[in-house]
Amino acid sequence: MSNLREEALELHRKHQGKLEAVTKVPVRNARDLSLAYSPGVAEPCKEIFDDTAKVYDYTMKGNLVAVVSDGTAVLGLGNIGPEAAMPVMEGKAVLFKSFAGVDAFPICLNTTDPEKIIETVKLLEPTFGGVNLEDIAAPACFEIEERLKKETNIPIFHDDQHGTAIVTAAGLINALRVVNKSLDEIRVVANGAGAAGIAIIKLLLSMGVKDVIMCDTKGIVYEGRTFGMNPIKEEMAKITNREKLEGTLADAIKGADVFIGVSVAGAVTQEMVKSMNRDPIIFAMANPTPEIMPDEAKAAGAAVIGTGRSDFPNQVNNVLAFPGIFRGALDTRATCINEEMKLAAVYAIADLISEEELSAEMVIPAPFDPRVAPQVAAAVAKAAMETGMARVSVDPEAIREKTARLTAISYQQV
Amino acid sequence: MSNLREEALELHRKHQGKLEAVTKVPVRNARDLSLAYSPGVAEPCKEIFDDTAKVYDYTMKGNLVAVVSDGTAVLGLGNIGPEAAMPVMEGKAVLFKSFAGVDAFPICLNTTDPEKIIETVKLLEPTFGGVNLEDIAAPACFEIEERLKKETNIPIFHDDQHGTAIVTAAGLINALRVVNKSLDEIRVVANGAGAAGIAIIKLLLSMGVKDVIMCDTKGIVYEGRTFGMNPIKEEMAKITNREKLEGTLADAIKGADVFIGVSVAGAVTQEMVKSMNRDPIIFAMANPTPEIMPDEAKAAGAAVIGTGRSDFPNQVNNVLAFPGIFRGALDTRATCINEEMKLAAVYAIADLISEEELSAEMVIPAPFDPRVAPQVAAAVAKAAMETGMARVSVDPEAIREKTARLTAISYQQV
Repeated sequence: MSNLREEALELHRKHQGKLEAVTKVPVRNARDLSLAYSPGVAEPCKEIFDDTAKVYDYTMKGNLVAVVSDGTAVLGLGNIGPEAAMPVMEGKAVLFKSFAGVDAFPICLNTTDPEKIIETVKLLEPTFGGVNLEDIAAPACFEIEERLKKETNIPIFHDDQHGTAIVTAAGLINALRVVNKSLDEIRVVANGAGAAGIAIIKLLLSMGVKDVIMCDTKGIVYEGRTFGMNPIKEEMAKITNREKLEGTLADAIKGADVFIGVSVAGAVTQEMVKSMNRDPIIFAMANPTPEIMPDEAKAAGAAVIGTGRSDFPNQVNNVLAFPGIFRGALDTRATCINEEMKLAAVYAIADLISEEELSAEMVIPAPFDPRVAPQVAAAVAKAAMETGMARVSVDPEAIREKTARLTAISYQQV
Repeated sequence: MSNLREEALELHRKHQGKLEAVTKVPVRNARDLSLAYSPGVAEPCKEIFDDTAKVYDYTMKGNLVAVVSDGTAVLGLGNIGPEAAMPVMEGKAVLFKSFAGVDAFPICLNTTDPEKIIETVKLLEPTFGGVNLEDIAAPACFEIEERLKKETNIPIFHDDQHGTAIVTAAGLINALRVVNKSLDEIRVVANGAGAAGIAIIKLLLSMGVKDVIMCDTKGIVYEGRTFGMNPIKEEMAKITNREKLEGTLADAIKGADVFIGVSVAGAVTQEMVKSMNRDPIIFAMANPTPEIMPDEAKAAGAAVIGTGRSDFPNQVNNVLAFPGIFRGALDTRATCINEEMKLAAVYAIADLISEEELSAEMVIPAPFDPRVAPQVAAAVAKAAMETGMARVSVDPEAIREKTARLTAISYQQV
């Protein structure tokens, strides 16, 4: 760990950060200058002035995502502020570029006021083709995303919510194939009422899961609970917990088919796993230490186990989702990322695991599987066009090929 | 011209803009990921959280300039809006990179409200090491710059004001060497009361010019003039026109030593030039057509002539100033660009023309003279350190060498 620390610091120091603004049209002499700058540059300006949509043809906007954060919920570090959040946002931009050729740029804001964040992103809309909200604490993140989706015409995506939800859902689909259960018959218990937990539950409900119980640090969330509630939990209480259970996580998990943890290390015991329905599925995604360690869960009878870690099978890693999702949204000039596009990403990721590959240890593709981003991009683009969100029509296969060409990763099985 | 138009459009369309966000640390596999992103990235985050200044060591901030515009005064095109301004701001970023290795990024804002522009830039301060304001109309540009200089701790520079002023002043110093006059004895008439005109006059006054008359479309600006005034002109009226002249530009220019035009084509006639003092100096910088064409000015007796155009000698081109200025400011982590740093840039540019090179046709270095940005960067860094604006101490010669290494231009005499 000390070695990782030194190497990571050295990597960041050596290059003074990880991202660079590079010119695609070098200006070496007066001729170059007259085309890329004055007087030639006036020509694309005039074209865009006459038709604003041409900003996508003549500028970087069409391939450009802002990675916006206020630094309030960075990794497991919490509210460390916008400057300290910069390495993560630069890193996110690096992933966008490496996995799907998307230009992304860190925007770390010196405010935690949701109104100011909303206004700033709206003012930046002419420059960016999309916005990835990152590491903004709940519940502010919900309002910021909802408002921006309504008040802008570019894709807005809070990755901590939807990236996690999409990859978890993809893993769950395949885990159910392993244990031979279906979405509409399972009981899911989710622990953690932050951005990711809420988004996971909403996505699963939209996919046909009917029986979900949400827990937080105070136990089961139910309608009428008088302690530890907030508006989003009130809303969740109405659409989950159909039997109106009260009690602890241990009470909720009895007889459940699936546990999804986005909470803290040690939240789940072997006793709890043993109390679940046959062939329990455990997604223990607390970082860096899962709610229950995979070997313990397995010993207690878990049939399929996923975590957030790269050193265990079935890593739930957002990088499987966001690069391809934005690739597909940008290339269709989508006005938003709607539910259908998210679902398309879920099934694109899940479907990559063939019947032959499928096993308890392989329900989610590896992060560096180079098929993923192209598959997701094509599926998201198709969904954007089918649901009328696309401003241009593009062959999804062309997007798949382009994405495959732009990806700079090497295949590596976990 | 039609050819330039087609080529410029093709250049912008082919690459979908001119700028790209490129990773300096490719993420090809899980090991790379663990250093550039989670979990390794937490280490620089923690370092910066403990000491905010380390954001300059571990992120791109220390080499990063925002090119901020509201699209209200773009080239000669006027108020064309933020989307249509994007090609110019990307182009500016390309020049920052090509001339001095500075990472720059376009930020085109969907507002023309000075308060909102000020607030947005302040919110972006954690991300950017400096801000180049660009193509923001007068008089809003003055307030925006002044306020941001007071309310941020990073260099704020409105290039349309100060870039033009610095290069004009450098040219004037050398033109005076040609005609053997000194700054404190000349009368300067400046035509144009926009961002550039105001900044040029203020800079010349700070350099020791004592006799300046400012004109606008209504004629001479004088204290007590009751028409066509605004707060900035009232201020200028107090510090210029010591004889309280009234009348037209033709009245003002009689007996003057220097004419500086940032106005419109045809504003100056041969008769006016003939009415000036011996060996008149003419900077006719209206674009694309100067206030008077160089051959006409010469025939009327002008001793030294400069324009904004690349097809005549003595081109006043901001690219001589801003890349080196920001290079010097960034590398010293300067908190602002003060008057001393601007003056250092003036003399750095002027001094590049040796006695042997100096002539009526060579008072300003060529835009692609590769000595310029290194010279300016070193001089600005030195001034930043001498005036206490620098947060780190760096050998100016090291900055000169670094800038020379980073510049990607080829030397080309006009």
